[in-house]
Amino acid sequence: MPDASYSLSELVRRFGGEALGEAAVRVSQIASLSSAQAHHISFLSNPKYRSQVAQSAAGALIVGRDMADQFERPRIVADNPYVYFARVSALFNPPPAAEPGVHASAVVHPTATIAHGVSIGANAVIERGVAIGANSVIGAGCVIGPDARIGVDCLLYANVTVYHACELGERVILHSGCVIGSDGFGLAPEAGRWIKIPQIGRVLIGDDVEIGANTTVDRGALDDTVIETGVKLDNQIQVAHNVRIGAHTAIAACTGIAGSARIGAHCTIGGAAMIFGHIEIADHVNISTNTLITKSLTQPGTYTSALPFSEHSVWLKNAVQMRHLDSMAKRLRTLEKKLEDGEK
Amino acid sequence: MPDASYSLSELVRRFGGEALGEAAVRVSQIASLSSAQAHHISFLSNPKYRSQVAQSAAGALIVGRDMADQFERPRIVADNPYVYFARVSALFNPPPAAEPGVHASAVVHPTATIAHGVSIGANAVIERGVAIGANSVIGAGCVIGPDARIGVDCLLYANVTVYHACELGERVILHSGCVIGSDGFGLAPEAGRWIKIPQIGRVLIGDDVEIGANTTVDRGALDDTVIETGVKLDNQIQVAHNVRIGAHTAIAACTGIAGSARIGAHCTIGGAAMIFGHIEIADHVNISTNTLITKSLTQPGTYTSALPFSEHSVWLKNAVQMRHLDSMAKRLRTLEKKLEDGEK
Amino acid sequence: MPDASYSLSELVRRFGGEALGEAAVRVSQIASLSSAQAHHISFLSNPKYRSQVAQSAAGALIVGRDMADQFERPRIVADNPYVYFARVSALFNPPPAAEPGVHASAVVHPTATIAHGVSIGANAVIERGVAIGANSVIGAGCVIGPDARIGVDCLLYANVTVYHACELGERVILHSGCVIGSDGFGLAPEAGRWIKIPQIGRVLIGDDVEIGANTTVDRGALDDTVIETGVKLDNQIQVAHNVRIGAHTAIAACTGIAGSARIGAHCTIGGAAMIFGHIEIADHVNISTNTLITKSLTQPGTYTSALPFSEHSVWLKNAVQMRHLDSMAKRLRTLEKKLEDGEK
Repeated sequence: MPDASYSLSELVRRFGGEALGEAAVRVSQIASLSSAQAHHISFLSNPKYRSQVAQSAAGALIVGRDMADQFERPRIVADNPYVYFARVSALFNPPPAAEPGVHASAVVHPTATIAHGVSIGANAVIERGVAIGANSVIGAGCVIGPDARIGVDCLLYANVTVYHACELGERVILHSGCVIGSDGFGLAPEAGRWIKIPQIGRVLIGDDVEIGANTTVDRGALDDTVIETGVKLDNQIQVAHNVRIGAHTAIAACTGIAGSARIGAHCTIGGAAMIFGHIEIADHVNISTNTLITKSLTQPGTYTSALPFSEHSVWLKNAVQMRHLDSMAKRLRTLEKKLEDGEK
Repeated sequence: MPDASYSLSELVRRFGGEALGEAAVRVSQIASLSSAQAHHISFLSNPKYRSQVAQSAAGALIVGRDMADQFERPRIVADNPYVYFARVSALFNPPPAAEPGVHASAVVHPTATIAHGVSIGANAVIERGVAIGANSVIGAGCVIGPDARIGVDCLLYANVTVYHACELGERVILHSGCVIGSDGFGLAPEAGRWIKIPQIGRVLIGDDVEIGANTTVDRGALDDTVIETGVKLDNQIQVAHNVRIGAHTAIAACTGIAGSARIGAHCTIGGAAMIFGHIEIADHVNISTNTLITKSLTQPGTYTSALPFSEHSVWLKNAVQMRHLDSMAKRLRTLEKKLEDGEK
Repeated sequence: MPDASYSLSELVRRFGGEALGEAAVRVSQIASLSSAQAHHISFLSNPKYRSQVAQSAAGALIVGRDMADQFERPRIVADNPYVYFARVSALFNPPPAAEPGVHASAVVHPTATIAHGVSIGANAVIERGVAIGANSVIGAGCVIGPDARIGVDCLLYANVTVYHACELGERVILHSGCVIGSDGFGLAPEAGRWIKIPQIGRVLIGDDVEIGANTTVDRGALDDTVIETGVKLDNQIQVAHNVRIGAHTAIAACTGIAGSARIGAHCTIGGAAMIFGHIEIADHVNISTNTLITKSLTQPGTYTSALPFSEHSVWLKNAVQMRHLDSMAKRLRTLEKKLEDGEK
């Protein structure tokens, strides 16, 4: 629970925008319209929730320019109220504080380099040759493998695993259970058995990347797997070896990306999408939830293969015809031919 | 291997039902019909396995009323033989015993409140302000974040992570690798970059909930993510921020539920289903395996979008027509029109 | 970075094949054609990359017999250049070295049996009755539950969890975050609630199995879940209770296999496939990415149900017709009937 409170004037001095109504009103936390109280500031980025404002007990609002004059309540008018809300919330809700220093139960190899201000949690393990940049937080139970490098101001929550020689940029956030640098799935078939291909590449993660809980990013087979600056990965995503994800691309949960796929910059990929290996996806591509991308996409746009659902008995009747589409197409052609012939 | 043995009479006194045949026969473990031996009790809940009974060496059986008189073997007749089996099995197979007390290698913050009978495993970490209810078991390597609350009689297997301020009810079971309370995927786009929305809600988990291995439940953005009493989640499920799952709903593995979806009570959701965000699903809905639910479901029933598979070359021929369905529909209409016109 | 270098002659003495060109040239690492330097050996297993050879700075090549005479460069001619490459790479890149011995911070129960040459990492936990075979490596933060057995020469990366009584064969590799032996999803419905079925089987894993990061394998309900020798599982796969996976089957990431499914030997299963429970899949079956297998497959072959994607607006027009396929089929039949009648 934050202690500090800010007047609307103070917020505007800090983040821009314009305060309307009583600008001296003080707020100390963000809340949704429905749960806000007098010391909360709420926000309205979608006009369809406008009617909720009257019932809301929020002490103040963040609204867009188009709604600047629709309320009496103390308010901040911002170009992008959702981003403004994010900034105010970050002010009120800094990441969980972590005391600098190495917890007595953590195991830090004497050859590791730990910069000033770093916090290493209880029972974390830092292997030989690791370097951790200033002010980074390594959560309890994390294991950082030999020769890995963690940049400055990173935040690794509890029980993250980073394999040997992987590198994180600055301000990277890794959530619990995520695994960076596990072996790619490289196998050569020989006489009915699989021979393992050693995976000797690394994972390189750029600045300002955030990776969700239990997401896995495999190290490269020969060259590196690369996640560029500003990429955001949700939970339980699988990134195979030698994938490259372009800057500022955001990918929702449960998506899988097969080996050596190259995803462009500024893409958005919906949940549970699957991307084939060895394909290239252009910048500014949007891929829908549950969509399977089987070949390269050279043009920006939105691509989809997800099926609409139906009530089960209806679905059964339609789905069975999926197995007859080729024959239906042929029968349709035959009928057209017959009618054409008849017309002649 | 359990030491205690029970006669059928003793089991009936404890769990109800009726013992037929030699009720003094003693059994000490449950087994399937095919692997049971003389000291085992087996069960028959599906009449199609009836023929296996003759070959089985099981010392006793649990059967339904409809099959009470079809066997000579010592048996317990129960209304619901599968539930009866579950109860007997729970008697023979209590969860792995854990010695009460805090293991010397565990790290417990002095401000944490640990009730009597609690067991905290080796190298577990209990952060500041945590409260753990009586007789709960925290497995080795678990990390319980600041101010989290664990109810009484909970069982957390090894390497579970619970983030700060999350709350578990009573008798909650969490399997290894599951992550409770990681940040939801909240991002505001600004000038081609993503601004992080702090996730300040919690995860609230009701009584008698079980959550499988490597399942992730994100904390709410503003309000809380809520999993109601009696919910059962299988492995590798993703529950996004501000989802609410109604009481006694069971969800199979690999399912994903997007942000702010509200799932009703007493639902069953098949494996690898995907549920869109911001929709509502009524009570008593069944969703099939691999089904994508894209809008609210207001009526109980079963809903499906999973496709039947085919041999690959057959599939290719049919799947290519998926891209021509709209044109096929139009051509069909044209033909119907022509014939109607011809008939006139 | 490996120190040792080998001449082509030495490699041929060790692994077979034939050295052509200057066989005394020495190499010390494997690299891709594009990043190789003079001390690297590269390989060409796919003729379509032949043109890259001229630009490559690789000091030597591994090539197939069909390309033996197409280059001047020092080269090894092999029957299977990809497998040859795997062997040379394994020579240059042994798994990360681990010092034998139990780290001071690890917790090993006095009743555990640790063979010679075993390495137990920092903060690992070995519970009572565990047996670990010679030369196995247990990574930092791993938890091995009571009475589990790990064979010789196994390699468990950091933060792996093995539940009680599970058994691993020899040379098994488990990647970080994988969970072996969590409870299967066994529930009996009773009066709107779920009664838990104790899961008393184990997980048995054969020799030379590799299991990827964050993959989960549930223990059996009554009998065991079995993964046979030589099976390779990628990341984030879910294997439910009582599944059996036949020898030398390889399964790509994000696949789910429901309870009691029996997968044959020498199968390949693409990413994000879903396999129904209680079905049998023959040996030598290939299942495509994103494919749902709903019934037993008795014949070798390739099976598919994944849909081709389209640009979104095109997809919408076609997908809506999916809901009318049954009616389209009927209308088609009606037209055919009319024309037949007309012809009569």
